[in-house]
Amino acid sequence: MSDLTLILGNKAYSSWSLRPWLALKQAGLPFTETVIPLRQPDTAARIRSHSPSGRVPCLIHGGITVWDSLAICEYVAEIAPGAGLWPADRTARAVARSISSEMHSGFASLRNTMSMDLKRDRHGEGMTPETAADIARIETLWADARAGSGRGSETGGPFLFGGFTIADAMFAPVVTRLETYGVAVRPETRAYMDAVLALPALRQWIADAKAEPWVL
Amino acid sequence: MSDLTLILGNKAYSSWSLRPWLALKQAGLPFTETVIPLRQPDTAARIRSHSPSGRVPCLIHGGITVWDSLAICEYVAEIAPGAGLWPADRTARAVARSISSEMHSGFASLRNTMSMDLKRDRHGEGMTPETAADIARIETLWADARAGSGRGSETGGPFLFGGFTIADAMFAPVVTRLETYGVAVRPETRAYMDAVLALPALRQWIADAKAEPWVL
Repeated sequence: MSDLTLILGNKAYSSWSLRPWLALKQAGLPFTETVIPLRQPDTAARIRSHSPSGRVPCLIHGGITVWDSLAICEYVAEIAPGAGLWPADRTARAVARSISSEMHSGFASLRNTMSMDLKRDRHGEGMTPETAADIARIETLWADARAGSGRGSETGGPFLFGGFTIADAMFAPVVTRLETYGVAVRPETRAYMDAVLALPALRQWIADAKAEPWVL
Repeated sequence: MSDLTLILGNKAYSSWSLRPWLALKQAGLPFTETVIPLRQPDTAARIRSHSPSGRVPCLIHGGITVWDSLAICEYVAEIAPGAGLWPADRTARAVARSISSEMHSGFASLRNTMSMDLKRDRHGEGMTPETAADIARIETLWADARAGSGRGSETGGPFLFGGFTIADAMFAPVVTRLETYGVAVRPETRAYMDAVLALPALRQWIADAKAEPWVL
């Protein structure tokens, strides 16, 4: 039994839960998962019994409670310093944090019209001019990161900064959205998506999501 | 001439700009400020010439560009390791990052109905049930932080974790909003607001804002 417990929403729908879950998996840290299905009569009370913000995800580590996806990822980077969850190079790390924060507070239209849904094929749904603009910006920032502007000394690996980092965790739910909604993307975007979708941890998450009994 | 340049929106209105500006000031780092007034014909082009996301704030440090308020604050904490911008204690730091992230992605109603405005007295405007709920949550998380749950070994000082940290920078625009809109608050909330409003750096920002020629 690990002393790390991650409180999650449904794997099919809780994009914010996927992010720190993937960071924990990629860091190789064992942890217990508690899934609290969303939109049930007892959902709010169950979440509030763990999370001060009343939202998932939330990480319990001994007596420490950490909430919000990005803060949990930062915490995981601290307790797993050898996992390379942030790029070692300062410039690359600054860019990785910039795009992670841009994801954390932005892309409202994409998040709204193409909410994560790992249960269904929703090709053709959700596209609006604002969502197209969000996706265009994301394709650019992915390409910039992978082209190495700000990548510093990190090399190798198919992810945004070479090896897997928190930036990839933050954008993983965007990768699944582009797939679910059948969005036409640039070839280099497709290559990055394929690298993320090939992660065994993400494949496990998606399989878990498909097996969940709840459909919203 | 410092090699740090912070690109800002109007000081009267750009709450996201205030956050890293205050962190830089409190860290004692000299920096150059470039204010780009918002909602002008050339605003978008001017911002885009500096910031990959097309948004302010944005920090230029030699060849490094860092954008988004929270990522800039993390960067400043890295380049000013002696400034204590995050609590030294791991538990306190985890809570400080949690509430900073909660601010970064949340409180949409407060941000919408009580936008930062350092030009005018707007007592009585903007209150809605959703904004009241946002403020109630903020009062609770401020009180919890200051009561020391998760404060760890940090002691002394009137701020959320004793000495000034990024968490205070992230919530500084909320302090000015509560003042501008004349929100009735708990006595301990008032005490914290007074500590933040007494910061010489924040007083300078507010004076600069009042002196700006642009009124939106």
